[in-house]
Amino acid sequence: MATGRLYAAAPPSDTMRGVIVDQAIYVGGARRPCADLGDELATLRRKGAPGDFLWVGLKDPTQAEFDEVNDELGLHSLAVEDAIKGRQRAKVELYDNTVFVVLKPLRYVEESSDIETGELMCFIGDHFLVTVRRGEASPLAGLRERLEKEPALLRHGPMGVLHAIVDTIVDTYRDIEQELGIDLEVIEEQVFSGDGVDSATIYRLKREVLEFRRAAVPLAAPLHSLHADAASRVTETELRLLFRDVSDHLQAVIDHADSYDRLLTDVLSAHLAQVSVQQNNDMRRISAWVAIAAVPTMIAGIYGMNFEFMPELDASIRLGDGEFRYGYFVVVGVMAAVCAGLYRAFKRSGWL
Amino acid sequence: MATGRLYAAAPPSDTMRGVIVDQAIYVGGARRPCADLGDELATLRRKGAPGDFLWVGLKDPTQAEFDEVNDELGLHSLAVEDAIKGRQRAKVELYDNTVFVVLKPLRYVEESSDIETGELMCFIGDHFLVTVRRGEASPLAGLRERLEKEPALLRHGPMGVLHAIVDTIVDTYRDIEQELGIDLEVIEEQVFSGDGVDSATIYRLKREVLEFRRAAVPLAAPLHSLHADAASRVTETELRLLFRDVSDHLQAVIDHADSYDRLLTDVLSAHLAQVSVQQNNDMRRISAWVAIAAVPTMIAGIYGMNFEFMPELDASIRLGDGEFRYGYFVVVGVMAAVCAGLYRAFKRSGWL
Amino acid sequence: MATGRLYAAAPPSDTMRGVIVDQAIYVGGARRPCADLGDELATLRRKGAPGDFLWVGLKDPTQAEFDEVNDELGLHSLAVEDAIKGRQRAKVELYDNTVFVVLKPLRYVEESSDIETGELMCFIGDHFLVTVRRGEASPLAGLRERLEKEPALLRHGPMGVLHAIVDTIVDTYRDIEQELGIDLEVIEEQVFSGDGVDSATIYRLKREVLEFRRAAVPLAAPLHSLHADAASRVTETELRLLFRDVSDHLQAVIDHADSYDRLLTDVLSAHLAQVSVQQNNDMRRISAWVAIAAVPTMIAGIYGMNFEFMPELDASIRLGDGEFRYGYFVVVGVMAAVCAGLYRAFKRSGWL
Amino acid sequence: MATGRLYAAAPPSDTMRGVIVDQAIYVGGARRPCADLGDELATLRRKGAPGDFLWVGLKDPTQAEFDEVNDELGLHSLAVEDAIKGRQRAKVELYDNTVFVVLKPLRYVEESSDIETGELMCFIGDHFLVTVRRGEASPLAGLRERLEKEPALLRHGPMGVLHAIVDTIVDTYRDIEQELGIDLEVIEEQVFSGDGVDSATIYRLKREVLEFRRAAVPLAAPLHSLHADAASRVTETELRLLFRDVSDHLQAVIDHADSYDRLLTDVLSAHLAQVSVQQNNDMRRISAWVAIAAVPTMIAGIYGMNFEFMPELDASIRLGDGEFRYGYFVVVGVMAAVCAGLYRAFKRSGWL
Amino acid sequence: MATGRLYAAAPPSDTMRGVIVDQAIYVGGARRPCADLGDELATLRRKGAPGDFLWVGLKDPTQAEFDEVNDELGLHSLAVEDAIKGRQRAKVELYDNTVFVVLKPLRYVEESSDIETGELMCFIGDHFLVTVRRGEASPLAGLRERLEKEPALLRHGPMGVLHAIVDTIVDTYRDIEQELGIDLEVIEEQVFSGDGVDSATIYRLKREVLEFRRAAVPLAAPLHSLHADAASRVTETELRLLFRDVSDHLQAVIDHADSYDRLLTDVLSAHLAQVSVQQNNDMRRISAWVAIAAVPTMIAGIYGMNFEFMPELDASIRLGDGEFRYGYFVVVGVMAAVCAGLYRAFKRSGWL
Ligand SMILES: [Mg+2]
Ligand SMILES: [Mg+2]
Ligand SMILES: [Mg+2]
Ligand SMILES: [Mg+2]
Ligand SMILES: [Mg+2]
Ligand SMILES: [Mg+2]
Ligand SMILES: [Mg+2]
Ligand SMILES: [Mg+2]
Ligand SMILES: [Mg+2]
Ligand SMILES: [Mg+2]
Ligand SMILES: [Mg+2]
Ligand SMILES: [Mg+2]
Ligand SMILES: [Mg+2]
Ligand SMILES: [Mg+2]
Ligand SMILES: [Mg+2]
Ligand SMILES: [Mg+2]
Ligand SMILES: [Mg+2]
Ligand SMILES: [Mg+2]
Ligand SMILES: [Mg+2]
Ligand SMILES: [Mg+2]
Ligand SMILES: [Mg+2]
Ligand SMILES: [Mg+2]
Ligand SMILES: [Mg+2]
Ligand SMILES: [Mg+2]
Ligand SMILES: [Mg+2]
Ligand SMILES: [Mg+2]
Ligand SMILES: [Mg+2]
Ligand SMILES: [Mg+2]
Ligand SMILES: [Mg+2]
Ligand SMILES: [Mg+2]
Ligand SMILES: [Mg+2]
Repeated sequence: MATGRLYAAAPPSDTMRGVIVDQAIYVGGARRPCADLGDELATLRRKGAPGDFLWVGLKDPTQAEFDEVNDELGLHSLAVEDAIKGRQRAKVELYDNTVFVVLKPLRYVEESSDIETGELMCFIGDHFLVTVRRGEASPLAGLRERLEKEPALLRHGPMGVLHAIVDTIVDTYRDIEQELGIDLEVIEEQVFSGDGVDSATIYRLKREVLEFRRAAVPLAAPLHSLHADAASRVTETELRLLFRDVSDHLQAVIDHADSYDRLLTDVLSAHLAQVSVQQNNDMRRISAWVAIAAVPTMIAGIYGMNFEFMPELDASIRLGDGEFRYGYFVVVGVMAAVCAGLYRAFKRSGWL
Repeated sequence: MATGRLYAAAPPSDTMRGVIVDQAIYVGGARRPCADLGDELATLRRKGAPGDFLWVGLKDPTQAEFDEVNDELGLHSLAVEDAIKGRQRAKVELYDNTVFVVLKPLRYVEESSDIETGELMCFIGDHFLVTVRRGEASPLAGLRERLEKEPALLRHGPMGVLHAIVDTIVDTYRDIEQELGIDLEVIEEQVFSGDGVDSATIYRLKREVLEFRRAAVPLAAPLHSLHADAASRVTETELRLLFRDVSDHLQAVIDHADSYDRLLTDVLSAHLAQVSVQQNNDMRRISAWVAIAAVPTMIAGIYGMNFEFMPELDASIRLGDGEFRYGYFVVVGVMAAVCAGLYRAFKRSGWL
Repeated sequence: MATGRLYAAAPPSDTMRGVIVDQAIYVGGARRPCADLGDELATLRRKGAPGDFLWVGLKDPTQAEFDEVNDELGLHSLAVEDAIKGRQRAKVELYDNTVFVVLKPLRYVEESSDIETGELMCFIGDHFLVTVRRGEASPLAGLRERLEKEPALLRHGPMGVLHAIVDTIVDTYRDIEQELGIDLEVIEEQVFSGDGVDSATIYRLKREVLEFRRAAVPLAAPLHSLHADAASRVTETELRLLFRDVSDHLQAVIDHADSYDRLLTDVLSAHLAQVSVQQNNDMRRISAWVAIAAVPTMIAGIYGMNFEFMPELDASIRLGDGEFRYGYFVVVGVMAAVCAGLYRAFKRSGWL
Repeated sequence: MATGRLYAAAPPSDTMRGVIVDQAIYVGGARRPCADLGDELATLRRKGAPGDFLWVGLKDPTQAEFDEVNDELGLHSLAVEDAIKGRQRAKVELYDNTVFVVLKPLRYVEESSDIETGELMCFIGDHFLVTVRRGEASPLAGLRERLEKEPALLRHGPMGVLHAIVDTIVDTYRDIEQELGIDLEVIEEQVFSGDGVDSATIYRLKREVLEFRRAAVPLAAPLHSLHADAASRVTETELRLLFRDVSDHLQAVIDHADSYDRLLTDVLSAHLAQVSVQQNNDMRRISAWVAIAAVPTMIAGIYGMNFEFMPELDASIRLGDGEFRYGYFVVVGVMAAVCAGLYRAFKRSGWL
Repeated sequence: MATGRLYAAAPPSDTMRGVIVDQAIYVGGARRPCADLGDELATLRRKGAPGDFLWVGLKDPTQAEFDEVNDELGLHSLAVEDAIKGRQRAKVELYDNTVFVVLKPLRYVEESSDIETGELMCFIGDHFLVTVRRGEASPLAGLRERLEKEPALLRHGPMGVLHAIVDTIVDTYRDIEQELGIDLEVIEEQVFSGDGVDSATIYRLKREVLEFRRAAVPLAAPLHSLHADAASRVTETELRLLFRDVSDHLQAVIDHADSYDRLLTDVLSAHLAQVSVQQNNDMRRISAWVAIAAVPTMIAGIYGMNFEFMPELDASIRLGDGEFRYGYFVVVGVMAAVCAGLYRAFKRSGWL
């Protein structure tokens, strides 16, 4: 956000620096600096065109800081409380003279495949828009500049900006949903190729998918009513179509996330089963080797018995003028042959 | 609760001491003592402002004790029965001249991570409010005092107090939901770090989450209709907004609890799988050691055979003027080498 | 049921003895004997007060037996068929001139923790009530007597009696739900203390919970419409409140049963996992003992080899004038030491 | 179906033999033969009473064969296509002048516990009914004859016949549902008694339950609307009650099938766990025997060592004038004693 | 698609070759070439019959390419964006003067049992239809030709073509659903016959079923409203019936896919259990062999002990003039007999 441009006119009081990220008046879609909030608003209300408005952007305001802005705007204290305390559900709330919107922008951290949930509150009133950012996942970075280059959008007034914000957030949802889809595919491949994947990784993805759904699902109903309800505060047909478009994208995103959720349950159980199968394979391999070793041990035991008469012990053939007592060699040969046979049999049945 | 202040005016009859926790009249938001219940109520009805009311607070009343209060108020016997018997669902019930509300305050016991469910019944009528506390989880401790310091809230009359009570309870829900979230995170970490966690602990958390949902979920629908239904007994716009605010917080809390519920199922199955994996690891380790021991046993068996001619047995080299029969040492060396080799192989494949 | 009092007036025909459990007229809440069914009904219809009615109680009637009663009442043949055939869902059906109600009373058999499902049909018409009992689980035992002592309730007419019946049945549901909750707690304790519980026991409880839900759940919707629908046949406000009360208790009971159902799934899988863990413990213990035995076997094997020169075999020290060949004792000592060491190591890692 | 009676009047064209199972006119509930289809229908429409109608029964007609019938009836081509192609969902579809009903009769094959799904289509129009049978599971066998003996039912016209058909099919559902219940009980007993049951058998039952639900569940909604919707084509109150009756029976049947479905999931997992437990039992038994054998092997190994001095080897006592070297016997005795001790210990802990 | 026939009249500009697959005018159901888009449309709107229309078929157009077409048609930019970006949910969206439909044609790849999802967008406006194909799964191949041979269908205008497209797509769904059913049956047979099936195969089928549902399920609601809502843009009764027919087929297809989804979960867990059972069988077999070998090893150990007096060692009988020392042979015989006995016992209990 081009901070150099901020506060071209009467800057806000000292306490508000850092809290007010930007504020400006948009007349016919064109930006101009904002002098005293109360005066500007009164002027806009008296002689502004329908799409002219004041846009104040705040970041993590305290109650006291917000009050200073609110003195001029008369926002409802319940909405203000939500904006200051945070940790709200995504929602669209109608107050007498304002619409209060809570959005849950998400940010995907590539390295850890982690989703971070931020919060963005919008107050839309008569000729004004207040946006309050909480946390780091900000969809507003650059949005104001982009809009200022498209006066046609700004001419829709605050509701047009709201649409642009929701659209941007839902676009992020879609990107993240695709990232989650890729994460799932990676896990699937690792699980089914027998590669080392960790049950914690699968579980963590499941957790992120649930976090994702917690941000996206509650927004679906109020977004739908913004464009479909007769009593919606969005009155322009064109804007309604724009909101319907976002609403529809949101629904597509939720559909995919639901699929991922269901697939992850199956992947997790397949993985857990495979770990157990892998271990059983190891056990089978060890046992097979023990079984192979048991055979010569048994045979050797037999020829280690101390019977007086065991003909194999001194079996011999005449070889030249000497006598070759071959018994030992035959038995060792038999041992080797049996072991080799067992080895091949175990190999063939996939146990080794 | 400042008991010193109680019963400044005509105190209730002897039988009611201990049952009536507090009673007072609020006129224009200011407290004044309450004389005879029936007289006071008649006066309030005749010439009280809309927000003036009588507030009686009871604790675990018996039928007889409640009847004494009810003589003056004319509450419906079904609602009274619910208040006396307890074990009700959270609900908002409309009677001809009163609204009867059952709330399920929760208390989180840190040491045992246990949730305890209490019960709080409210009768809201024409210029009066009766609150009945059952069990130990009490959201009312201190609430009356807090309200008495904010006459603006008390001026909304009994429905304003109801809002304050529900708001306090839902705030506790939110705190507990966060505790449950922390408990879940602790369990997740233990499970996935391989630390000793016990399946009973996981199950117990699941049980608490279900207890939590049983308190919170049934409240959602009646709370919603309190602010959203045209026929709601909450008629002031401002109060409706206040109830909508609580309703919305409740929904957020339920969303989180649902996530926990679903995650716990997966954590439990991951844990059970891990226990089994851990045991299989042990078995594999033992078996690997047995396999290592099987090799020298087998070799020793071979050289324990009693064949007449086994050349290794008296293999010797001339060493100075003596003869060194090295066979035994070579074989023991081979044994040691094979065992060391196996050990390293098993170590490398993670079996030891 | 006080049989001595039955049929004070003209008794029913011979074929009906045993089928008609009781029949009487209630005028202003007071009982009086019932003469000929048709005549009595005609009189009631001509000059009875709104709450005056005839109550006939049947038990397992055949079609022919029911027809005899029905000659006078004109119940719809479909409802009659349901009452005779049985095996119906709980329901409330409106016919032109009657309301037909099917209830599923439950009985809990303490010894076997078994739930038995009975059936109770009620025909509520103009100045009459017919109750038909099927199976053994009867909520009516004693109910008529209890009602006769409370004429105020009887004065509500047949719908008042219906309320009393449903109330009694739902009270049983609540008792049984608590029994199921206790059964679940017992099972939980057995499973998590490692006590011997049997998967069949868990499954059986699950089956009973499903049987319970099959009785309770279908009743919820029609019971709700009895008190909440504008077109309900329950017209008195007071009676509607009474039905709302039962409806609400039923819902609480269903909530609990749902929790049990979900917990039982988890308990079952935790139990199955624990059985497997227990068995693996056994295997590990046996294997550990085998591993311990493998060590002296291996050592003994080595000293059982027949090499010409094995210095340990005749290692000796001079002891007085004799020579003590200590080899054997040292080796046996080493064996014992190694085994003891292994035993302690296995003990420490929890394998023995 | 009494084929001797067919086509008493002008028989259908040659191509239609075998396709037309039966056709007749019902006037005032009494059957009379049907001459030319078009003429008969024209007559019925001109001067038939409301309940008089023509009933044509077809079996597996081709498009060409159906067209011949349809020339006279003017059924909608989409409905005809469904009837010819088959593989439809159960449904009730309203066309301009006809009601088209698809039913899924089921047949239970006792030997294989298999459910077979057939199809029955009904076209109900002004004074006519066409029934089309597909597949072998036919609920119509004998139904026409039964109805012809109850003119009161036939007098309701084609909708009355439709009720009779649906009623018959739902009665079969109920019978099959009870068979499924018995199959489930048999499986439960086998699983929990440890008898040999096969996971394929359980899975197969689950599959049949799903097939059952696929036939029954989609019928519920249209059947409900037949009796409950204001716009339903069933206009007679009496017929509506009859349809409500069937609708209600269908719902009961679906409830049970749902329970079975849920129980089967648990039975399957209990069974799979038990198989694994059984195998672990076997392993434990084998391992216990190996452990028993390991003890004498170890002891024998020790006395097989070749140490010069092993006092046990020639331990002897004087016995008469000879000397009895008892060492061997003592050791063998010790071996036997240890083995017996182990055997008893393993027996006691349930491992053997 | 017969490319030879394309662009008989003024062809589209150079940039549009390859993007415009085909374009033509249909008057009274008969095709004629399309000159300049704008002129043709103006003529159609001025004097075309209701069913006359222009049909432009595009494939993977870029924004620029689409704009060229859109100059004449005035489609809404949001719908155009969806058509160009793709990755939309199936939907039917109403704009002021057009209906925008997104369809998800599927293609089943026999070799890999893989489903591929394509996309087809339709813009239906006043006297025109634009179809946009994305990806390879195209239901339009041959459809235009087929329709051109059935002028009766084309006379319904663009909505008639939409029906034909949706009908074709849903027919493919039905075919694919049957393929999935077969795939499931194959897997079932492999799992329950113990044949080698791979958990990845089962999982992959589950994934395909979810992909299938993601295409089919979102279409159900808008398709239903096309024929059932009063405000639907489909105004002809006949067309509404056609859409109802497709809608119904779609529902049948979804029902089946749901069954497959549920069955696959059970098949997967049965398979995983069976793999574990198979491995346990192997372990049991190996252990049984080890147990058999342990017996002669133990016996041999005993007779390998070096006791001075072991009577069996020189047991002999006189045989002719020599002496036969039979001990060794007896012991080896006993070993063989015990092993054979064990082998038979293990065989009988199914362990070998
Ligand atoms: Mg990633
Ligand atoms: Mg995260
Ligand atoms: Mg977007
Ligand atoms: Mg966009
Ligand atoms: Mg879009
Ligand atoms: Mg295992
Ligand atoms: Mg804690
Ligand atoms: Mg706890
Ligand atoms: Mg608790
Ligand atoms: Mg609060
Ligand atoms: Mg608050
Ligand atoms: Mg709030
Ligand atoms: Mg009990
Ligand atoms: Mg039981
Ligand atoms: Mg039972
Ligand atoms: Mg009760
Ligand atoms: Mg009561
Ligand atoms: Mg109550
Ligand atoms: Mg059977
Ligand atoms: Mg079957
Ligand atoms: Mg079947
Ligand atoms: Mg029936
Ligand atoms: Mg019947
Ligand atoms: Mg019935
Ligand atoms: Mg195992
Ligand atoms: Mg295939
Ligand atoms: Mg595939
Ligand atoms: Mg695919
Ligand atoms: Mg089709
Ligand atoms: Mg078709
Ligand atoms: Mg069709």
